[in-house]
Amino acid sequence: MKCLVLAAGGGTRLRPRAESKPLLPLLGVPLIERCIRSAREAGAREFVVVTGHAGEAVSEFLHDLARRLRVSITTAVNPHWDSTENGHSILAAEGLIDEPFLLLMADHLFEPALARRLLEAELPEDGLLLAVDGYLDNPLVDLEDVTRVRRADGHIAAIGKGLAEYDGYDTGVFLCSPALFAAVRAAEDTTLSAAVRHMAAAGRALAVDVGGLFWCDVDDEAALARAEAALLARLRDKVNDGPVSRHLNRPLSIRITRHLVAWPVTPNQISLFSFFLSVLAAGLFMAGGYWALLLGGILAQAASVIDGCDGEVARLKYQGSDYGGWFDAVLDRYADALLLFGLLWHELGHEWEHRGAGLAGEGDAGWVLFIGFMAIIGSFMLSYTADKYDRLMQRRIEAGGKAGLRLGRDVRVFVVFLAALTHLVWPALVLIAAVMNAEVLRRILLLRHG
Amino acid sequence: MKCLVLAAGGGTRLRPRAESKPLLPLLGVPLIERCIRSAREAGAREFVVVTGHAGEAVSEFLHDLARRLRVSITTAVNPHWDSTENGHSILAAEGLIDEPFLLLMADHLFEPALARRLLEAELPEDGLLLAVDGYLDNPLVDLEDVTRVRRADGHIAAIGKGLAEYDGYDTGVFLCSPALFAAVRAAEDTTLSAAVRHMAAAGRALAVDVGGLFWCDVDDEAALARAEAALLARLRDKVNDGPVSRHLNRPLSIRITRHLVAWPVTPNQISLFSFFLSVLAAGLFMAGGYWALLLGGILAQAASVIDGCDGEVARLKYQGSDYGGWFDAVLDRYADALLLFGLLWHELGHEWEHRGAGLAGEGDAGWVLFIGFMAIIGSFMLSYTADKYDRLMQRRIEAGGKAGLRLGRDVRVFVVFLAALTHLVWPALVLIAAVMNAEVLRRILLLRHG
Repeated sequence: MKCLVLAAGGGTRLRPRAESKPLLPLLGVPLIERCIRSAREAGAREFVVVTGHAGEAVSEFLHDLARRLRVSITTAVNPHWDSTENGHSILAAEGLIDEPFLLLMADHLFEPALARRLLEAELPEDGLLLAVDGYLDNPLVDLEDVTRVRRADGHIAAIGKGLAEYDGYDTGVFLCSPALFAAVRAAEDTTLSAAVRHMAAAGRALAVDVGGLFWCDVDDEAALARAEAALLARLRDKVNDGPVSRHLNRPLSIRITRHLVAWPVTPNQISLFSFFLSVLAAGLFMAGGYWALLLGGILAQAASVIDGCDGEVARLKYQGSDYGGWFDAVLDRYADALLLFGLLWHELGHEWEHRGAGLAGEGDAGWVLFIGFMAIIGSFMLSYTADKYDRLMQRRIEAGGKAGLRLGRDVRVFVVFLAALTHLVWPALVLIAAVMNAEVLRRILLLRHG
Repeated sequence: MKCLVLAAGGGTRLRPRAESKPLLPLLGVPLIERCIRSAREAGAREFVVVTGHAGEAVSEFLHDLARRLRVSITTAVNPHWDSTENGHSILAAEGLIDEPFLLLMADHLFEPALARRLLEAELPEDGLLLAVDGYLDNPLVDLEDVTRVRRADGHIAAIGKGLAEYDGYDTGVFLCSPALFAAVRAAEDTTLSAAVRHMAAAGRALAVDVGGLFWCDVDDEAALARAEAALLARLRDKVNDGPVSRHLNRPLSIRITRHLVAWPVTPNQISLFSFFLSVLAAGLFMAGGYWALLLGGILAQAASVIDGCDGEVARLKYQGSDYGGWFDAVLDRYADALLLFGLLWHELGHEWEHRGAGLAGEGDAGWVLFIGFMAIIGSFMLSYTADKYDRLMQRRIEAGGKAGLRLGRDVRVFVVFLAALTHLVWPALVLIAAVMNAEVLRRILLLRHG
């Protein structure tokens, strides 16, 4: 599928932020890269981008992007880019496209599912399809600026900024036949909206409703802030986040991630950093002493928060990989075990100090050793059984049910944190050993009946 | 796809073993059940079975089998079952089938891929396809008894037991058009071979080569023993078995499985039994003393051997399930950790006895604790990373390469076993801690570029 991206505009309202709007980074990734990546995920592989203002910088960036994404990107120049009529940009690509194509705006964000919905619909002969957002209360829409649409029986009845009666918004995502070029020429002015009206008059412009799907037009500072907030909000994991993650770690990690994305740090580096914080915490637990335990607890919880950032940065900067997720999980298992081992060591030292030495296997030291071991193995097994449990919960949600309790790493580390703060190490070890192994047993029985 | 199964014969040569040959259990599962299950796995859902000798017992069994497998099984009776002409059995089903169908012999074992290969080939109009084994040295074939086939240009040129010139064997698996019924009537005698010759004369009997795929005709005691040996040999896992498993555990567990299949014990029960042996072994390690350690080591290795039986019984008796494999893996993780914890406890007690007590974290007891912990965590992580590693090895094998080293549970338990036999617990813990964690690190690096 070919794809035409309009990226010629001056973007004057965002000029203080960036010389070129398509290159304006939103959470670490330029707007036009987000646009092209979304289209690519929906299936597009060949792109024609029309540049204008700051055209050379944009072309250079696209040249590099094409190599990174392994797609073909051709650029065309719209010499009238400073005109308010965006149809000139479309005409600049006329010789380069002679088949149906996706038409996108470089400053419109959208999720791939939105473009996919257009691709699944039937394109009318010599016509176009426009993705229309029927969710009129969409908080991401700037009512002053959005292009409004009125539909009638699936057809576009009217389109324009000032429309008084409307039932949807123009998302800026189109599927067009090459007849669009002729329509731009034939329309009353050289704008895309006029071309759509021209086609609509012939009954060849249809609307596809995409209400509820994410899209956002980034025109000014306020829209940029809204888009950033929306992308960050999408990082909240609905299924796999446990209660501590949902209410404490995730809100904090998203705040950190917001700043991290501006730096060239990779998700795997963040995973490693979080791991080293946990190792440090375990070392402090082992060192013993009031303040070491306290500081260790804070570091452990900090590591747990930062452990959320790797995945968030990966999702925001398209750096996610199967390996990255696995690498993070492997480090987490080591970190979990080390933290509990640190507490076990701490408690064992404590035990000996107060009661004098005794042979392991006799008296309280033996119990500490055994409970500490059960806490470590129970934590491990909870992670080991998480995949299968999460899949079951996912199926339940898809079947319209509710996911059950998600006891996981977030809860465990939080208990470690509280134990270190309150110096109640022994009760925490007992609690973790009991609850983690009981939860594993529950999963074994639950999954048996599927 | 409909399926006609001939199960009327007297099976005189196996009469001392079972009154009815189709009901003769081979490794815990009657021959006809193996036949029907293979066809079902290849896609068949409707079966017509022609019975004769011991017809009532067979019918009763099939009634129950249909319910268990959720397939439809109709029976028809061949009143001439004691005739040597097997065509009478085919004719007994004439009114019940009027579309292309798989034709199978109740006493022929075959793997589903063999039937699938027939189903993928094109059935000639009013003709038949015969699965022909071109592997002339097939050790499962009884040259005295097998029906031989000579092919010419994909067609069956000759078929019969006494054929001097031949280039394949009749596997007893056919795909037929309903024209077979007329061919049986028209042939020189009422045998299947004569019917095939009749169709072949009209150029309507084709051969599909299935050389290399598993099939076996069970006619007498010797064939039964060969079939049993072949099914057991297929239990050797080529990819996921480590060196100790391949050369020690698997040969032993297969011997045990051979007897286990006759009992109504389920794979999950075997998993649980193996787990309890490991718990017992860990308890003996903790109890300390020369003989307890020795006995514990032997029990641990025995548990590791028996741990192979659950999967083997499941495969032989079609009792395998996703859950069963997972349940076994979860128990194995607990068993692994308990065994190493037992050794750690043993060594810690030893340390204190010889050197006097000391605060954990100081001197040798601290090292024992740390190394024991690293052995436990390393073992666990090896299992945690096994899925991804095994998939990489599988891809390498499929690409024609060799799988790398497979360090797994088999090796680990074997080291525990040797440590207990030789009382070299401390070196074993150091070895396991070092090797397991180093292997995890190797996997992390290998998969990164994988």
